[in-house]
Amino acid sequence: MKVTFPQAKEIKNILPAIVSFLSEGTFKANKDGIFLSSLDPANVAVILLDMYPNMFTEYDIQDEEKFTINLEDLKKIMTKVALKNQISWEIDKEKNKFVLTVYGKAKKVFTLPLIESEGSFMDLPSLELPVKVEMDSKAFYDIIESAKVIADEIKIVADPDGPKVSFIAEGELKDMRIDLTPQDESVLSMEVPSKAMARYSIDYLYKLSKVARISDTLTFKLDSGKPIWIDYKSTDKFKFGFVLAPRE
Amino acid sequence: MKVTFPQAKEIKNILPAIVSFLSEGTFKANKDGIFLSSLDPANVAVILLDMYPNMFTEYDIQDEEKFTINLEDLKKIMTKVALKNQISWEIDKEKNKFVLTVYGKAKKVFTLPLIESEGSFMDLPSLELPVKVEMDSKAFYDIIESAKVIADEIKIVADPDGPKVSFIAEGELKDMRIDLTPQDESVLSMEVPSKAMARYSIDYLYKLSKVARISDTLTFKLDSGKPIWIDYKSTDKFKFGFVLAPRE
Amino acid sequence: MKVTFPQAKEIKNILPAIVSFLSEGTFKANKDGIFLSSLDPANVAVILLDMYPNMFTEYDIQDEEKFTINLEDLKKIMTKVALKNQISWEIDKEKNKFVLTVYGKAKKVFTLPLIESEGSFMDLPSLELPVKVEMDSKAFYDIIESAKVIADEIKIVADPDGPKVSFIAEGELKDMRIDLTPQDESVLSMEVPSKAMARYSIDYLYKLSKVARISDTLTFKLDSGKPIWIDYKSTDKFKFGFVLAPRE
Repeated sequence: MKVTFPQAKEIKNILPAIVSFLSEGTFKANKDGIFLSSLDPANVAVILLDMYPNMFTEYDIQDEEKFTINLEDLKKIMTKVALKNQISWEIDKEKNKFVLTVYGKAKKVFTLPLIESEGSFMDLPSLELPVKVEMDSKAFYDIIESAKVIADEIKIVADPDGPKVSFIAEGELKDMRIDLTPQDESVLSMEVPSKAMARYSIDYLYKLSKVARISDTLTFKLDSGKPIWIDYKSTDKFKFGFVLAPRE
Repeated sequence: MKVTFPQAKEIKNILPAIVSFLSEGTFKANKDGIFLSSLDPANVAVILLDMYPNMFTEYDIQDEEKFTINLEDLKKIMTKVALKNQISWEIDKEKNKFVLTVYGKAKKVFTLPLIESEGSFMDLPSLELPVKVEMDSKAFYDIIESAKVIADEIKIVADPDGPKVSFIAEGELKDMRIDLTPQDESVLSMEVPSKAMARYSIDYLYKLSKVARISDTLTFKLDSGKPIWIDYKSTDKFKFGFVLAPRE
Repeated sequence: MKVTFPQAKEIKNILPAIVSFLSEGTFKANKDGIFLSSLDPANVAVILLDMYPNMFTEYDIQDEEKFTINLEDLKKIMTKVALKNQISWEIDKEKNKFVLTVYGKAKKVFTLPLIESEGSFMDLPSLELPVKVEMDSKAFYDIIESAKVIADEIKIVADPDGPKVSFIAEGELKDMRIDLTPQDESVLSMEVPSKAMARYSIDYLYKLSKVARISDTLTFKLDSGKPIWIDYKSTDKFKFGFVLAPRE
């Protein structure tokens, strides 16, 4: 396998969010793309990254292969790479190495060991999540950031009467409430076929929604007592999302 | 009581300086304005904030009321508010709550409990402080910042012969001396009717003068063995100042 | 001795790099310039700073004199000085003081004690270092910064066949390799008369090469088992460089 990213920007920007949940990542690479789908060590969130062949200027993958690498090491190396540097990823099967080449002012070649995969690629079951909101990702992050000051859990209540979706954080004495309606400037679309209420960890939502700069809009879907599924809108090149389990 | 600030900027910028001295604040609100006047826990400085009715676009206060809130919580919430967001403050007497509403991309409502006031609103006695200097606030901050490198106490010496006002910091072996005269670019006016000398904590002056960005100019007044009174020049909308006790 | 720098910029920018190695510095001042040449406490690097008379707008030095001052104190004071402020250095022999005057919005006078010199001015022996590369300082810093992620030691291998100069960092399992050739955009000139290989501490190179902003280009010279000598290109006003001992 050898693939070339015309610029480091997207992968460099996404890595910090991914690494805050996963220290290792298993990728599945085939002719449809390179995919990451991993459950975090606390078994609370699944991190999803899809990179399609048209994200790359060179895309040489013969047979499907899975490989696991240390994402923290990858992130550390990427930290020093300029956003517009061209980079390539390569698997050297003989040496059992992952090779990252950076084409900057000087060509830099980094190698990382391939790690024994522990079956950590997770194929997600399909989920029925009727409440669906497409909104400005910065506004979503903003809500979570404000809620973080008040509590460590956010309650999301969807009401078809309106419709509206409310974010409620309740601290010991202080609290916060934000009502989103389809009329809000930051809401692109809202589907609330039935009432729903679920609670999620603010900490997780905060760390994950920090990637807001990747993409201007996101879609979240949820249902009572079910996970929240958040997808960052992207071009046809790549997709980043996560699925976060509800709190009891 | 309900009042609306057309933008969060002024109150958001002042809060960090206030909170570095006061964790709780008692406000007195009447038809003349909303006032804070509190002695810090170490009994060394009185923090003063006056907000006049014309600072607000909505100003609904019937009878004088005092209320005490946790300023650290208020600051944490304000940290997430954009400078130009409109905000309102409201007292919900029935629920014994302080309600802060932020009109951003989405409307956010925060509530904080009202705290039992411990008579912490301080009516200041009038003080005769003949030495008076009006100067650039950035230049004042600059002097204090430099002095901080040398010592933890600054000696201010005013001499009518000149006139000049000298700032002297003396460390064990190293020292700093700065002479201000009416001719200095950063001095707008200087009145020194008689000699005076007093010492103040640099730490306090540093934390307080960090608010320099609020306002371009300040006025300080002092006398031998008496407090230094600093007022940040402001529009007719609000005033921020503090009174710092001298060191022996 | 009294000298005046038309602006604080150069000395202010160099000080943090110098202070990360030397807490005290002995200067030799004579009619040819003011020179610093000190071995760091770990006896691994010699820090070199030459400031020539045309760096100054006032240069009053009669007889050669050496003086030692605490560079950390000097740096702390300089931190608060604006880049374009004029400053002067003066030795007050009677009071045994170093006097730093800053001509900013207000004139500030700082004094530091002169320290008993312990013969710490080091006259360097001449060194034959045939491998010589002149390159972009930002690109050099970039290489060291990337290598720092991988290991704490960098191997530099020079090969006349090419010619090329390779930077190799080897971690436990991961590694990095960068080949520089005269064709690289960041290389201005390269002389490799013979093969050479030497290892140096990345930590030292990193801290030292952080001063890259001082100057756009640098020249490094080395030989097998010998020190690396790095000079930052500068005008005819001043020169900054260092000599770093090889690792075994």
